[in-house]
Formats: sequence, C-alpha cells, structure tokens
Amino acid sequence: MVLHGPNLNLLGTREPDRYGSQTLVSLNAEITQLGDELGVSLSCFQSNHEGELVDQIQQAEVAGFLINAAAYTHTSIAIRDALLARALPFVEIHLSNVYSREVFRHQSYLSDIAIGIVSGFGTNSYLLGLRAIYDHLRSK
Amino acid sequence: MVLHGPNLNLLGTREPDRYGSQTLVSLNAEITQLGDELGVSLSCFQSNHEGELVDQIQQAEVAGFLINAAAYTHTSIAIRDALLARALPFVEIHLSNVYSREVFRHQSYLSDIAIGIVSGFGTNSYLLGLRAIYDHLRSK
Amino acid sequence: MVLHGPNLNLLGTREPDRYGSQTLVSLNAEITQLGDELGVSLSCFQSNHEGELVDQIQQAEVAGFLINAAAYTHTSIAIRDALLARALPFVEIHLSNVYSREVFRHQSYLSDIAIGIVSGFGTNSYLLGLRAIYDHLRSK
Amino acid sequence: MVLHGPNLNLLGTREPDRYGSQTLVSLNAEITQLGDELGVSLSCFQSNHEGELVDQIQQAEVAGFLINAAAYTHTSIAIRDALLARALPFVEIHLSNVYSREVFRHQSYLSDIAIGIVSGFGTNSYLLGLRAIYDHLRSK
Amino acid sequence: MVLHGPNLNLLGTREPDRYGSQTLVSLNAEITQLGDELGVSLSCFQSNHEGELVDQIQQAEVAGFLINAAAYTHTSIAIRDALLARALPFVEIHLSNVYSREVFRHQSYLSDIAIGIVSGFGTNSYLLGLRAIYDHLRSK
Amino acid sequence: MVLHGPNLNLLGTREPDRYGSQTLVSLNAEITQLGDELGVSLSCFQSNHEGELVDQIQQAEVAGFLINAAAYTHTSIAIRDALLARALPFVEIHLSNVYSREVFRHQSYLSDIAIGIVSGFGTNSYLLGLRAIYDHLRSK
Amino acid sequence: MVLHGPNLNLLGTREPDRYGSQTLVSLNAEITQLGDELGVSLSCFQSNHEGELVDQIQQAEVAGFLINAAAYTHTSIAIRDALLARALPFVEIHLSNVYSREVFRHQSYLSDIAIGIVSGFGTNSYLLGLRAIYDHLRSK
Amino acid sequence: MVLHGPNLNLLGTREPDRYGSQTLVSLNAEITQLGDELGVSLSCFQSNHEGELVDQIQQAEVAGFLINAAAYTHTSIAIRDALLARALPFVEIHLSNVYSREVFRHQSYLSDIAIGIVSGFGTNSYLLGLRAIYDHLRSK
Amino acid sequence: MVLHGPNLNLLGTREPDRYGSQTLVSLNAEITQLGDELGVSLSCFQSNHEGELVDQIQQAEVAGFLINAAAYTHTSIAIRDALLARALPFVEIHLSNVYSREVFRHQSYLSDIAIGIVSGFGTNSYLLGLRAIYDHLRSK
Amino acid sequence: MVLHGPNLNLLGTREPDRYGSQTLVSLNAEITQLGDELGVSLSCFQSNHEGELVDQIQQAEVAGFLINAAAYTHTSIAIRDALLARALPFVEIHLSNVYSREVFRHQSYLSDIAIGIVSGFGTNSYLLGLRAIYDHLRSK
Amino acid sequence: MVLHGPNLNLLGTREPDRYGSQTLVSLNAEITQLGDELGVSLSCFQSNHEGELVDQIQQAEVAGFLINAAAYTHTSIAIRDALLARALPFVEIHLSNVYSREVFRHQSYLSDIAIGIVSGFGTNSYLLGLRAIYDHLRSK
Amino acid sequence: MVLHGPNLNLLGTREPDRYGSQTLVSLNAEITQLGDELGVSLSCFQSNHEGELVDQIQQAEVAGFLINAAAYTHTSIAIRDALLARALPFVEIHLSNVYSREVFRHQSYLSDIAIGIVSGFGTNSYLLGLRAIYDHLRSK
Repeated sequence: MVLHGPNLNLLGTREPDRYGSQTLVSLNAEITQLGDELGVSLSCFQSNHEGELVDQIQQAEVAGFLINAAAYTHTSIAIRDALLARALPFVEIHLSNVYSREVFRHQSYLSDIAIGIVSGFGTNSYLLGLRAIYDHLRSK
Repeated sequence: MVLHGPNLNLLGTREPDRYGSQTLVSLNAEITQLGDELGVSLSCFQSNHEGELVDQIQQAEVAGFLINAAAYTHTSIAIRDALLARALPFVEIHLSNVYSREVFRHQSYLSDIAIGIVSGFGTNSYLLGLRAIYDHLRSK
Repeated sequence: MVLHGPNLNLLGTREPDRYGSQTLVSLNAEITQLGDELGVSLSCFQSNHEGELVDQIQQAEVAGFLINAAAYTHTSIAIRDALLARALPFVEIHLSNVYSREVFRHQSYLSDIAIGIVSGFGTNSYLLGLRAIYDHLRSK
Repeated sequence: MVLHGPNLNLLGTREPDRYGSQTLVSLNAEITQLGDELGVSLSCFQSNHEGELVDQIQQAEVAGFLINAAAYTHTSIAIRDALLARALPFVEIHLSNVYSREVFRHQSYLSDIAIGIVSGFGTNSYLLGLRAIYDHLRSK
Repeated sequence: MVLHGPNLNLLGTREPDRYGSQTLVSLNAEITQLGDELGVSLSCFQSNHEGELVDQIQQAEVAGFLINAAAYTHTSIAIRDALLARALPFVEIHLSNVYSREVFRHQSYLSDIAIGIVSGFGTNSYLLGLRAIYDHLRSK
Repeated sequence: MVLHGPNLNLLGTREPDRYGSQTLVSLNAEITQLGDELGVSLSCFQSNHEGELVDQIQQAEVAGFLINAAAYTHTSIAIRDALLARALPFVEIHLSNVYSREVFRHQSYLSDIAIGIVSGFGTNSYLLGLRAIYDHLRSK
Repeated sequence: MVLHGPNLNLLGTREPDRYGSQTLVSLNAEITQLGDELGVSLSCFQSNHEGELVDQIQQAEVAGFLINAAAYTHTSIAIRDALLARALPFVEIHLSNVYSREVFRHQSYLSDIAIGIVSGFGTNSYLLGLRAIYDHLRSK
Repeated sequence: MVLHGPNLNLLGTREPDRYGSQTLVSLNAEITQLGDELGVSLSCFQSNHEGELVDQIQQAEVAGFLINAAAYTHTSIAIRDALLARALPFVEIHLSNVYSREVFRHQSYLSDIAIGIVSGFGTNSYLLGLRAIYDHLRSK
Repeated sequence: MVLHGPNLNLLGTREPDRYGSQTLVSLNAEITQLGDELGVSLSCFQSNHEGELVDQIQQAEVAGFLINAAAYTHTSIAIRDALLARALPFVEIHLSNVYSREVFRHQSYLSDIAIGIVSGFGTNSYLLGLRAIYDHLRSK
Repeated sequence: MVLHGPNLNLLGTREPDRYGSQTLVSLNAEITQLGDELGVSLSCFQSNHEGELVDQIQQAEVAGFLINAAAYTHTSIAIRDALLARALPFVEIHLSNVYSREVFRHQSYLSDIAIGIVSGFGTNSYLLGLRAIYDHLRSK
Repeated sequence: MVLHGPNLNLLGTREPDRYGSQTLVSLNAEITQLGDELGVSLSCFQSNHEGELVDQIQQAEVAGFLINAAAYTHTSIAIRDALLARALPFVEIHLSNVYSREVFRHQSYLSDIAIGIVSGFGTNSYLLGLRAIYDHLRSK
Repeated sequence: MVLHGPNLNLLGTREPDRYGSQTLVSLNAEITQLGDELGVSLSCFQSNHEGELVDQIQQAEVAGFLINAAAYTHTSIAIRDALLARALPFVEIHLSNVYSREVFRHQSYLSDIAIGIVSGFGTNSYLLGLRAIYDHLRSK
C-alpha cells in the first residue's frame, strides 16, 4: 500500500520548483506500473486527515507500506503507533530533501521504526522505495 | 465519559506484550460494570481522529472524563484546550508506563490540568482511574 | 476567507474571562459587516479537525485568509504546508495574548510565512486583521 | 510495605490546601484497613533521611512496595538503586499532581522502573496504588 | 503617546525593501490624522537612546502607549520595567514580520505585558495598533 | 534559629583562603551576641545529614530561620519542602560568593522561597542576615 | 558611592506592593544617615541611562560602590566592564528577591565580580549592603 | 564514482547482524554490474583515511558520487567542503538505518547538500542510490 | 581509607550480572590483603547515608581515599565539599562502566577533583585504584 | 570612521595586563598616522552610550567603519541595526582575544554582517583592521 | 596491543607539568616489561593519523587493546566503529584527568563500549590498564 | 610557517564567489614576498590530512604559525593539542567570514589558544595575519 499524507493531493500544482509538475494521479499510475512489472499489486491512498491515515494503516491487508506522511512525519505519534501496532515493514519516502529545509523537518517520528528511508529524488523516491520494500520482502 | 485515543481500537491485537490481550469491547464492559457497582452511568468513545475527540469533549453531558488520549497525549493542544474550555475534572490514563518508553512520551499536554494520573497498570489503569474520579466527584 | 481553528465554536461559553462573551456567530456577523463596509465578500469556516482546515485552505477560491488556527497554530505543519502550497497572503489572528500564556503557545508554525500577526485584542483582533489584509491586497 | 518520604510526617499540618487535613497516622490506618480487606499484611515507614529509606528498602521482607518518596523522588539515585537491587515490584505514589507544580518536580528517578504511577488524588493515591500492586501481584 | 525606538528616524531611507519608503515625519502625520478622526490627541517621540525612552515612558501623561521599541524590544529590560511601573496599557508594534527574521528578533521583553501585538504590516501596523488601543481604552 | 549545613563544622580549618579562619563555635558566639544586642534568643544547629536538617526545621519553635544549607542548597528539595511546610520566613546565607564558583552552585532550591539572600561576606553574611530577618519580623 | 539603575527614581510610586512606599530621596537620606553613623561620606546617583552609569563608575573617586543596577544587572556588560576597569570592591543590591521573579532576572552580569550580594529586603538591602562593604573595606 | 568510508573494507565480517555477509569486493561487483546495465562506467574507492577521501573527491573526473562516508558522515566537515568545492551531484548512502542507532549518528554533515539519501536497505542502498543519481543526471 | 557508598552492602546479592557475586566482606578482605602486600594499613567503611560518608571523610586520619560513592557520585555536592575541605588525594572507583548506563550516571561531582578514575573492572577496580593511589603517594 | 565603544576611554589605565598601556589618544594618533600613510582621512569617536554610537553611525559621512563596540558587541542589536541601515562596509575590531574570555563574549551581534574580524592583537588590531578595510574599499 | 593517539609521540617534551617527563619509548619499554612479568606479548603503535589507528585496529591479531586515543577519543567515530567491528575487549586510557580539563574532553566516543577506563595517573594509567585487561581476559 | 588545511589546494577553482580566484601557489608567493619585505623566512604547507598537519606542527622549526585549518578548525582537537604541545604563538586565519556561514563554522578549537584571529578578508587575511604575528614576535 502507498500512503500519501497531507497536501500531496496538490502535487503538480503546489510549489512546482520544489515538488515538480507531476500530479498525484500520474504518480500513482507510475508506481502502479512499476508494481505490475515487479508482480506486485498496489493500492494508493491520500488524505489530509491524520485520523484517516491511522484508519488506513490499521485496516490495510497488505505486506508492507510505502509512506510519505509529509507534514505528519514530523508531528504524528498516532501514525507511528499505528505502524508499531501493525508491525509490518515500511519505507519512509520524501519528495524533497528534508535535511535542506526547516529544522523542524529534520525530525521524524517514523524513521527509527522504518526499514529505511528514501528522500530527495522527487517522485522517483516512490519508485526507489517500491524497489526497496520489494527486495526486502522477497529476501525474507 | 471514557475517552480512548488513537489505536486503542486495536487493543488485544496490538503489541500484546505491552498492552495485554483484552479487547476494547471487553475493557469497556469491565469499566461499565465497575461503574454500575459504583452507581455511575458511563459512555465510552474511541476515535483515531483528534478532531472527533475534541468534538466529544465539547458535547459530552457528563460530570467528568476518564481520558487515555494515547498518542494525542503528547501532541494535541486542541484536546487540552477542549478540556480547559469544559473545565470539568478528568483523570489521565495510560495502559503502559510511559516513563519507561521513548522520551517524547514523557511529555503530556494534559497532565498539569488533570486531577491526577494513573499510568502503567494495563487495563486496570481505567478501573483505578474510575475509582479516583468517582471519589473526587463524591467528595466535592 | 476567515478560518477558525479548534474550540473556537465554543466562543462566548469557553473561559469568558479570557475570550469574552461574544459568540462565534455574532463574531462572524461582525466581521462580515466590516467586510461589507470595505466592499469585501467573506466566508467563515470553523472546524475542530486539522484535516478539514487543510481541505478548506486547499479549496478556497479567495484572495487571502484571516486565520486563527488556535491550538493548531502551535502543532500543525500540515496547515503550514497547505498555506505554502496556496501561496496566498494571510494574517495570523489570536484572541488572547499568546505571549502571556504557556511557553508552548509562544511557538507558531504560521508566523514566519504570514504577512503579519494581530494578537491579544479579543474579537477585535479579527477586525483589525481584516483591515490589515484588505490594505495589503489593495496596495499590491 | 508502604514507604513515606521526607516531610510526610507533617501530613495534615503541612500546606493543607495542597495536601489535605488527614494525618499520617490516620492515613496509615486507612491503608492498613484496605490491606486487611484485601487480605494483605502491611507495614508503614516514614523518614526524612534518604539513607533510612534505602536501609528499609534493602531490609524489608515484602512482596512489593508502595512508595511516596516525596522530595527524594526527584533527587535520589540511591533510592532508585536500592529498588533496582531488590528487583521487587513497586508503585510510585504522589499526593499532589506533580505536573502542575515546579518543573523540577516533573522529573523522577523512580518512574521508569516502577510498575506504574498514581499521582494527584490526595491520600486516595495510596489506596488506589495498593489496589494496583495487589492486582499486579495476584495476576503474576 | 507613540514611541519609536532606535533607527526608526531613518525610516524611508533604511532598507526600503523591508521598511518601505515612507518617512517618520510622514508616518507621524498619518498616525496623528487617524488620532484626530478618532478624537484622540497624540504625541510622537523617537530616540536611539534606551534611557531616553525610559524617561519618556516615566514622564508621559497619557492613557496608553503605542510602542515600536525596534532593537530594544529584544534587549531592554529597562523599558519593560518602566512600562510595568506605569501600569498603563500599551500595544507592541513592528513594521516588519519579526518572526521571519533572525532568531534573536523572535524574543520580546514587552510582549507578555502588552495588551496585544500588531506586527508585519509596515507603517499600517501603527494605524491598526492605534485602533486597537483606542477600542481597548473605550471598552473599559 | 541558625542552621548550618554540611562541612560547616570544619569552619576555620576548611579552605581558609575561601572561608576564613574563624571557627563555627566562635561564629555561633558572635551571632548569639548580636542576637542579645537585638534582644533575640537564638539557637544554632549544624549537621552533615540532610535528614537531620529537615528534622530540625520541622521541630524548631521559632519565628524564622537563618539558613546556610551549604552543599544542600543546590541539591535538597527535602529541605525546601520542610521550609514550605513551616511557612516561616527565612534568610539564605552563603559565606562565599557562590556566583563566582562552579556553575552548579549558581542554582538554589531555597532562593525563590526565601525572604532574601546575603552572600559573599564571609561570617559577616550571618550577622547581616540576622539584622535582615530581625527587621523583617519587626516590621510585620 | 551608591548607584541606582533605571526606574529607581520612581521608588515609592512604582509597584508599591513589590518595592514599598519609600521614595528614592528618603532612601538616600536613610543611607547617608547610616553612612554618617559609620563615619563614611556617601554620594548617591540615579540614572535611566546605561552610559551615564558607566560614566559615573569611571569617574567616581571612591573606595567602593553599592550598586543596584536594576534592569541593567541582567543586560549590561558595559557596566560590568566599567567595574572591572576600576577594580574597586562593590556590593550588588536588589530591593526585591530576584529569584522569585522572571527567569531572565536570575542572571546577573555583576554577581561573579562583586564582593557579595544582598537581595530581597526592600530598602533595607541598601543599609545591609552598606554595612557589608564598610566591614569589607575596614578589614582590609 | 562510489566512495566507501572507514571500516567498510570489513564488510561481510563486521557485525554481520547489522551489515550482512556480503563483502566489499562482491558489493562493488554488484554495483558495477548495475552500472553496466545502465550504461554507466563506475570506479569504487574505499579508505579509512578522511584525507584520502577528500583527495579522491577533489581529483575524481566524474559526473557525480555515491557516498557512504560511514563514520565520517557525522564528523567530517572536510569531506563536506570537498563536495561543496566540486559542486557535483551526489547521493548519501547508508547500509543500516542510522535513525534507529545512537543519537550522534542522526546528524550528517552531508545530507543538506546531497541530492537525496538512501538509508537502511543494506547493500541494496547502493543499488537504489545508483538508480537515483542515474535518473537525476539523465533528467538534467 | 576505602569508602563504599549506598547499596554496596548488597554486593554479591544485588544484580549479580552487573556487579558480580563477590560480597563486600570478601572484597574488603581482598583489598586489605593487597594493602598488606604493599605495606599499607587500610580501613573500610560503607554507608547508605550521605551524611555518614561526609562525617567519615571529615574525621578519617588517613593519607588518601579510595571512594566508590555509588549513587552519591552523581548527586552529592556535600561529599565533594568534604573532600575539598580535607584536600587529600583520592581515587574515584566504579564497579560497572558508568558510561554504558543511564545518562545521569555519566555526571560525577567527584571526577574533576580526584587524582584519577578507575571504572568498569568489577571488584578489580578497587585493587587497581589502590595501586594507583599507592604509587601516587609514594611518588610525592 | 573609527568607533570605540564603552570603557575604551580608559585605555592605558584599565586592566593594563589585558589591554596594554597605550592611551586612547595615542592610539587614535597612531591610527590616523597610518591613515595618512594610506591617504585616508579618518575621524575617531568614543562613547560609553549605546545611543550615541547609533547616532554617529547614522550621521557619519564615510566610506566605511572600523568598530570596536566593546561590551556592546555582545548586547546591542541597535548598533547592528544602524549598521544594517547604513549598509556600509565595516571591520569588527577587538583588542583582546574574546574567545579566551567569558562565554558571553563569544557571541557578537556584528560579526555576521561585518566584512571581517580582527581580534586579539591589542592596539595593533586597529591598524590591521584599517589596512583590511582600505584594501577592501580599494578593490571594489 | 597498545595504541597511542595523536601527539603522544611528544611525551616527555609536551607540557611536562601535565604529562610528566617520561618519553614514549621509555613508557613502551615499561609497559612491555610489565607484559613480560604477566607473560603477555605486547606490541605498541603510535600515530597522529586517525586512519592509521583505524587500520591498526582492523589488522591487529590480538586478544585486546589498551587505547589512549588522546584527541581522537573525543572526535573519532571511525575508531569507535573499528573497535565495534573487531568486538575485542579494550581498556580506555588517559594520562591526565580529562574531567578536570575542557568540557569537550569530558565526552568520549569510546567509553560506553570499553570494558572500563583508567584516567588520570600519568604513565601509570597504562600499567594499571594492562593489569585490568589481563585480569579481564584471564577471568573469561 | 604557513599551514593550509583541507581543500585549500583548490583555491582559485573552489567556489570563486566565496574564496576568490587567486590560486594557492600565487597566494603562497604573495605571502612569501611580504615575508621578504619584513625580513622573515617562511615555509608553506597544505594538506587534506589532519594527521599530516599534526606532523608538521610537531616538526616545524619555527617561531610561530599562521594557520588556516579550514574544516579542521571546527573538528580537530588533535591540531589543537599539537599547538598546545609546541606552545608557539600562532594566528588563526580564515578567508571567508565564518560567522556569516553555517552555525557549525562558528565554533573553533583553535581560537581560545591563538594570539588572535583574522577572518573574512579573502587572501588578504594571510597578509594581515603575517603582519600581526610579526609584530607580536618583535614586541616580545
């Protein structure tokens, strides 16, 4: 499952210098296509609501997550706890390089419990993250 | 009123080593039963959504609250403000001993405005908390 | 657009010593009236849900915002990111003087990206803020 | 065993607004009575001397402790070490809500190694704590 | 009384990108004119000397102050103490948005004892602040 | 009552460059003599044991205290709590200027609840402190 | 020489609950009278200007200083440097107990280079300080 | 160019639980093979010496770097400066998830000037990083 | 003289995984035996009371100390002051490696005034420390 | 223009071990002489008053400044703002090596906006600074 | 193996007041001699290069290390990682008492993974450390 | 001796906006020429290796150093210790104004033990520093 956090629905229109011009629909298509190539079935979900992201994590019948929690990366212990509760592997994704931005974006409530992190490669971060979790799950 | 914060709907399935194997339904039944013994009518509410917890606190027609805000204990000033606005007595509840966990769980936006805190006794924390607020309200 | 954050629906009943006895309905009427005087059409929105405030900011077809994010001022990077994404001018409003309250209310995720701040004048803060953004937009 | 730290011998006379008017003798009687109801034999000990509290913890032939270390909660690693050495379960008790007081009372050298904490309910904190440790020991 | 702190005599010539091109004389005229409209008599004073600002605050026979203490906002406890001594209402004014500037400009020795703050609207901050204190004094 | 904390029994032999060559017996005699002049009856007590100082504060039948808690000034919340419990006026005394020594001596658990502080004048600090509390008590 | 810092000219009128009702003129007379009793000639000087206090310290032909630098205690390195340059003994005086006030008043740029400190005894702090420096100078 | 920092020559023998059992030679072969597939010519270099890594960065005739600076990630401003001087794009690589390890490994002198980061996927981090920089360079 | 701080009387029974199974009596015998070999007469003292350790340091007629102040290492300025007052050389001893334990055990009030430190070698730390102080005293 | 901050008028008499025995008059002559050699006309100004230094910076008709703001280096944002307002190049000068002195002298409100800094060479710092700004202005 | 860090080759000439007058050659001879007495074969190595120390730790065919990493104790994660990779027991050695020196020498990247620490006894620290590791290895 | 730290060999090519276009060879020639004018014989050395800089400092037969340690200024205690060991006067040089750059460049391990600092004047910093140390050595 691919989870997109708040404001990612604006992708392509929001600060294109930072986030590029690809829309979320197009990005989801591209991720799904790579999933098809790898033989993996994917569902994508975006919400601006912390609680809905928690709900999805709780209910998803999946082998793992790709998560770009966006702003909630830095403020949501609830999402962290949902991931701890599910105990499924996940990869933390960021479009931009969070370490070259405001100090409060350097802290993450997800990093230490993720398998790993892919940050800074625009929408390509998702594709790399998908490969990463795919390889992780296959090697277990 | 008994308020349960995010991920407590998973009780019994989530990290049973830490949180025990009792489900939320069973816990609510046990709390309600103690309420009956004490002659107190209780309603229970769980949500993964910060805003819904705020809504409930605003609308509840009650004499006080038992609150286990879970992750929102550490991040929600909105819940704090709702409790300040209602100015009703409440007891802060935790299943686990938050002080033996991550540092960010040591901070609470609720503690200083609560009557008191019961932390670390698993689902028994709720039963003790109910006795505590019952005695508090009766003694006034 | 005028955005009111969590617990502002209780205005008039919540801690009247701090927030005054005027209700939100009455306040909105007063703001709208000043808008009429200035020839500005306004819509008002209140929510206790962080995600709904993000949704509104994303969807509003407006020239700018008056925002009293209340508790979310201090905890919501998601609202900050929505405002960054829209890149519209906004004024940060507070009823009470946040600097004479708890230390965690001194930090704002909105201040550095706002045009300016009006804080401490009760419901009058909104009226002053409306004049401020009106003058700002007119002078551009 | 019930351990009372420094200045608790003044209970009933010391800052009655904060600590209530019940004396230590009366409190001990009430705790012992609840112990009798639960079929538990209790001994109570108070000292203003850190070393005497350490001595008692070392020598007590008990199944667990109720400890209100008062001021030593925040300054005594020696008491912490005595409890670590005995490796017996204990509950940390506070009469007042320490989180609504001076910042230096928010830190505890005991919390992270206790089973749990009961804080803020006046002398009722002891009775609730006794129930808590009783249930804890019985369930093992 | 309107008090201007250090370097505000350079208004119109100093960093016009940040502070605009209006001079202090012109600004004072504009404030006085609004005062006339409101039926309020105003005097304006500027100094680069902390001590002279303290002297003025001590001696002014006024109902309240509009203060833009500029650099002294962040360093002068003496001005704070003079305002505490007079115990008159005042509004803290800033031309620029201090929260989008250096970190040392985020701290103010005046904010917590002011009625409120108007920051970021250029010379319009004074006009809004004048309305704010006028409404404050009238409502008492 | 005059209370001397740990190591003050070594006065006259301990680090004479810092503390002078007068012994505690001689100092007590000098304080008592000034007390006689002022018509005040004094008792003096020294201990190296935190608990004994707490005991003395609890039991003393006096109008106020002169306290040089020495090392316990910086580490003892128990002594602070005993003084809070008694709610009697006291003056905090230091022989040396604690602000020109190690950083951990700059913090005091007593200062904010004392009437005042006399620090740095050697044994003369006691005599000045005695005058201070005498004047304080007489003026009430 | 007795130096009074900013706002002390308001003594008797400024916050009488904190600072008492004695005026500066009356205080200076009382200090001078004690000086006469001790056979010491005194001059007194007050200023709201940091620079004037520096000037006075540089030019005074005295054996030592009593200094209540008030707000400048916490912000003026210039006054510290003037005192270091003169290398004369001085006593730091405070009317109120600065340790029971705002945190920024706990820091002093003068304390570590003073002989000692007398704080919290109202105008009596000056009289005690005068005795202290008199004894200090006589014993040398 | 692929740069390996200190102790990476031990790969396969060093803490295999954390770093896996693949050797550096084998890893370099695997990276080079992916490079061949992508049509990219690669050279690999490992050193335990900070200065040699700086030398290599200065002299390399390449289009970009994959860098796992290992321990020097957290301590070397010299490597940062060499990368700034070359102004070539690079990806920061980590075998383990540095955010689940010691706090001093959470800080990086490279992150904010990298294109992006791939961390936590064992030797796969290099392969993903290679794809990332390949896509980055191709898209320019 | 060999001084043992709080809880060391439990040696052999307390957390044997950390502290080993040798008792304090046996350890004292072993230290004394090495003392005999070196021609040094030793006395050993253990207490759980901070004040008694201060008393012993004040009264001991010795050439130096071996001190394992245990918990008081991290909290007792009184013991530090007693050692400063005696101005005798001493070696700081720890059974366990305090740097691999809780952060609050990394701070010591004794280290900077000790000759040196021996930490982490179990009861052997005492024997090495005895050699260290023996060599130190002999070389003077 | 050469600006000297507070207490520099005492040069030659103030702490000669630290500041040397040359007077300010003699120093100014030496600087002026080097100015003559370089063909530069200089004026020198010293004040103990922060406001007068601000006045001078505002009014000076010069190409740049040599500034030794002494104590105000560490406390004056007003001087910083005056220099920002003038936007002229300046060199920050210190007689002593501020980094080997008190921690509060390590911070400067001027350094980041200066061309550069010359610190620690006594009165020679001015001569070197004059050469530095001369070369800077000539090279533009 | 005995490892000496940077500047220890200067032993005997470098700051003899702090480090004594024994040379490194003489020290190595003394250590080797004690090794012979204990039946242990030793090799000694000194380098000013962090990388060479890492190389040596990686390649040494030994049962354990005595390490005085000197300046690299406080800055080298690379040496820490090499020791973690080898997983051999080692003792951390310091000639001087690092806790009585600059604050940055109080932190060590080696302490928490060492068996133990011997600090402050000059060259004798090595001899004591050798005994310590000898006893440690023999007891396993 | 003139010591250049890491990446200074790139001078003229590295970030010319910050560091200018002069090469290291040309800079060394210019410094040597000024040395000739002053009658001083100079040798210049650059290295990217911390250890080689330490070696040079140890072995140089010189009267003093000009050191631009570049990145190692902020991370190398080894270079500090080498300079302490030699106890020769040195001047700390920086091309750029380090105080207007990243926070980690504001800290220096060399400043407090240098004679003085020259920072921010490009390659001219070396020439000014040479004059400074020349004058320093001549005046002794």
